[in-house]
Amino acid sequence: MIVADITMSLDGYVTGPEPGPGQGLGRGGKPMHAWAFDASSEVDARVLREAVESTGAVVMGRRTFEVVNAPGGWSEDVGYGAGHATTPPVFVVTHRVPDSVRLTSRFSFVTDGLEAALECARGASGEKDVVVMGGGDVVRQSVGLGLVDELRIHLVPIILGAGTPLFDDGETRQLIQHSVQVSPLATHLAYRLAPA
Amino acid sequence: MIVADITMSLDGYVTGPEPGPGQGLGRGGKPMHAWAFDASSEVDARVLREAVESTGAVVMGRRTFEVVNAPGGWSEDVGYGAGHATTPPVFVVTHRVPDSVRLTSRFSFVTDGLEAALECARGASGEKDVVVMGGGDVVRQSVGLGLVDELRIHLVPIILGAGTPLFDDGETRQLIQHSVQVSPLATHLAYRLAPA
Repeated sequence: MIVADITMSLDGYVTGPEPGPGQGLGRGGKPMHAWAFDASSEVDARVLREAVESTGAVVMGRRTFEVVNAPGGWSEDVGYGAGHATTPPVFVVTHRVPDSVRLTSRFSFVTDGLEAALECARGASGEKDVVVMGGGDVVRQSVGLGLVDELRIHLVPIILGAGTPLFDDGETRQLIQHSVQVSPLATHLAYRLAPA
Repeated sequence: MIVADITMSLDGYVTGPEPGPGQGLGRGGKPMHAWAFDASSEVDARVLREAVESTGAVVMGRRTFEVVNAPGGWSEDVGYGAGHATTPPVFVVTHRVPDSVRLTSRFSFVTDGLEAALECARGASGEKDVVVMGGGDVVRQSVGLGLVDELRIHLVPIILGAGTPLFDDGETRQLIQHSVQVSPLATHLAYRLAPA
């Protein structure tokens, strides 16, 4: 199964303004990931653990890669799957392979588009899921093009007021509400995509 | 307590394009209120019933009034509180009192702004809540100005792609997730507003 999985504010932003290396969630965006990092709730911890354990490969966009590749970003102990038995390979959708990659064994670069990256990830994921983890543009495209089976939104109780919107104008798409899990810091929504 | 209560698509719209009399939820927006009108789920029915029973007065904007006042809109048997013991009085925020009002006993018109309408509604609500029921602009303003205690969003599993957005650029506001109730057709979110 191909899953798009991202955290969103109540007003539809996936980051605050000016996201980038050192400030991946933008100005004022840090509370967005409290549910994942505080780990104060059983529900949040389980949602995170089950997502990681079912993931065979990850797809991300170039700007997200720049964030996790920067100093203070991912490391041997930090990042998708860190602390679990195996960390899934990550396929970065980009126009150009970057000059400097810190965790070379973890990242591959796919220069011929999102669909190609999803194909590569599917090939590497075995029986497990492919997870499109961001940024917003890659998630939006993968949903808009009907390339994913499930859309997971971690809806957090904040109105950001500005930043990177997840959705913009597009086609109407009916979803099927598949599951909802609630913690004090987030409402974890999972939707199945109905055929367009 | 003052409550803002509105149905929103996953991509943040409260109606599809071109909302108006005869098409209150805009083009393609009709599935938005399936949770309220199908009444196929116990949860949806209870959410609706409890909201109505706790409401002492309603505030709405002028465009919403035009929709409910048009033929095919509200009647003795249709509208907020219809079928219950008492129907709450409705205060319409408007610049000008309309010439033609069908259900005259139900509507009052307040021409000096949203805060004044909320004051009038509070005066008429007794021990019960004042509910700001729409449209999007009135809900957005009442939340943005910190005039409400609780924001209730009925989040429906549809990406509309276009229409009337509930939120637009504004200030960051941290919310407190108060309760979440889940039916197959909607996730009923209630947030308390933290002091700005």
